[in-house]
Amino acid sequence: MNEESVIARLRGARLHTGMGLKLGIGDDCAIYRPRPNQDLLFTIDFSIEGVHFGSNTDPEQIGRRALARSLSDIAAMGGTPRFCLVSLALTKATDEKWIDAFYRGLLRLARQYKTPLAGGDLSHANQIVCDVMVCGAVAKGKALRRDGARPGDILYVSGPLGGWRHKQDPQPRLAFGRKLIGKATACMDISDGLSLDLRRLCIASKVAASLERIPSVAGATIEQALHDGEDYELLFTAPPKVRVPGIAIGVITKGKAGKIVYQGKLVPALGYDHFRNRT
Amino acid sequence: MNEESVIARLRGARLHTGMGLKLGIGDDCAIYRPRPNQDLLFTIDFSIEGVHFGSNTDPEQIGRRALARSLSDIAAMGGTPRFCLVSLALTKATDEKWIDAFYRGLLRLARQYKTPLAGGDLSHANQIVCDVMVCGAVAKGKALRRDGARPGDILYVSGPLGGWRHKQDPQPRLAFGRKLIGKATACMDISDGLSLDLRRLCIASKVAASLERIPSVAGATIEQALHDGEDYELLFTAPPKVRVPGIAIGVITKGKAGKIVYQGKLVPALGYDHFRNRT
Repeated sequence: MNEESVIARLRGARLHTGMGLKLGIGDDCAIYRPRPNQDLLFTIDFSIEGVHFGSNTDPEQIGRRALARSLSDIAAMGGTPRFCLVSLALTKATDEKWIDAFYRGLLRLARQYKTPLAGGDLSHANQIVCDVMVCGAVAKGKALRRDGARPGDILYVSGPLGGWRHKQDPQPRLAFGRKLIGKATACMDISDGLSLDLRRLCIASKVAASLERIPSVAGATIEQALHDGEDYELLFTAPPKVRVPGIAIGVITKGKAGKIVYQGKLVPALGYDHFRNRT
Repeated sequence: MNEESVIARLRGARLHTGMGLKLGIGDDCAIYRPRPNQDLLFTIDFSIEGVHFGSNTDPEQIGRRALARSLSDIAAMGGTPRFCLVSLALTKATDEKWIDAFYRGLLRLARQYKTPLAGGDLSHANQIVCDVMVCGAVAKGKALRRDGARPGDILYVSGPLGGWRHKQDPQPRLAFGRKLIGKATACMDISDGLSLDLRRLCIASKVAASLERIPSVAGATIEQALHDGEDYELLFTAPPKVRVPGIAIGVITKGKAGKIVYQGKLVPALGYDHFRNRT
């Protein structure tokens, strides 16, 4: 196995040429031709052994989740994915079987959401490090941002919380996000836990929030629904008169930016912070 | 120090808003508005402690070179950089001083080449891992690819080889690359050594090459000029009648794709391969 042979195999697996992707794996850069009247969205997410997944995690699931995390960011802006770049650093212990399973999982999700693998980098490290960049598209000026929530807006989630990490086959909320275009005043995905991510949305929008109910998946506690990361449901706001899908969980209020109360009590931001939690 | 505080400091350092970048650090995605009649170029490159730099390397230089590697890929396609995304995984030993110096080096080069930092990811690992994605732009259909070299074309480099890694302040060949638009039949940057990268260009173009001279920087041997990585000069081809800048080093020939001879002798591909060299 060498770098060229991995690249040659991936080039064979290239999907959905066309769709604006003019050149994929194998040159210095990928070439993408944008369509008129669209903005492009860009997000990048690490998946690191010992941080985001364990050494014994099924590599197919690692690949799928690595891409799903970035697709979820595209969903949070109301976008449609266009292509991805995947950087992968392997350890001496990584064999061809692992690499094949990793790309099988990633490419299956890529195919489902029409997100061709357009390039990346290959290297080695002491632990497996994957970094996935996804480019998405959205109608010009229509991307859902997290800074537009206003006092009086209703606060929603796209589904019950606390369970994503247990799902075999998590699905990024791309179709749901697109339905919110022109309706939601703010939107983001819940990647580090409702309490921490809602705080971020409120700080960006310079508002506070009052939670009234927290929908949780079967088997999850309220604490898990409130603080667990990796939900990847969408958290969004809309004025009371605007009809949107989703579950209403509270209301945006005036007050100190980022202050969250749940049934009248102050909620601490206990979600996952990479620097705070690393020691 | 926590994730939010690093992000807040970087947001303050955001450069050159406008230029198509509508939203930078702090939301789920960056938003970029493409110009009409341009193709976009995408490249991503790891810089990993113990692989691409040593534990005692000046962090300012690590940051600068991490970005320079990706800018060099944009140069190789004849493009102009538009923005970058930077993923950074830190170790427990990384302090604020290191982080500040890393971003100082990276952002200084970013400012020089008008490449605003539009986002990224922050995490932790057992060794420092940086991954830099750069988006560039080029006139529609005009990107310089590596698959267009034809027998009879003259082979050139943009400068003498074997010395880049010793330079304090390496410069990606962006202006040079743009001068080759509409002239060069194939182009790439030399990142893994002339012998290996020329072989890649020849395989992509289904041609062979005959090297006649190998220009080396003062103090570098011919072997270093031929096989050392990290030159980041451009390697390109053009028909004999077309005037281009650069140093002629040989000619493209018919023959087995990827076969390279130097002054009549077969050249082995000894450049840097991440998988072959890792054991």
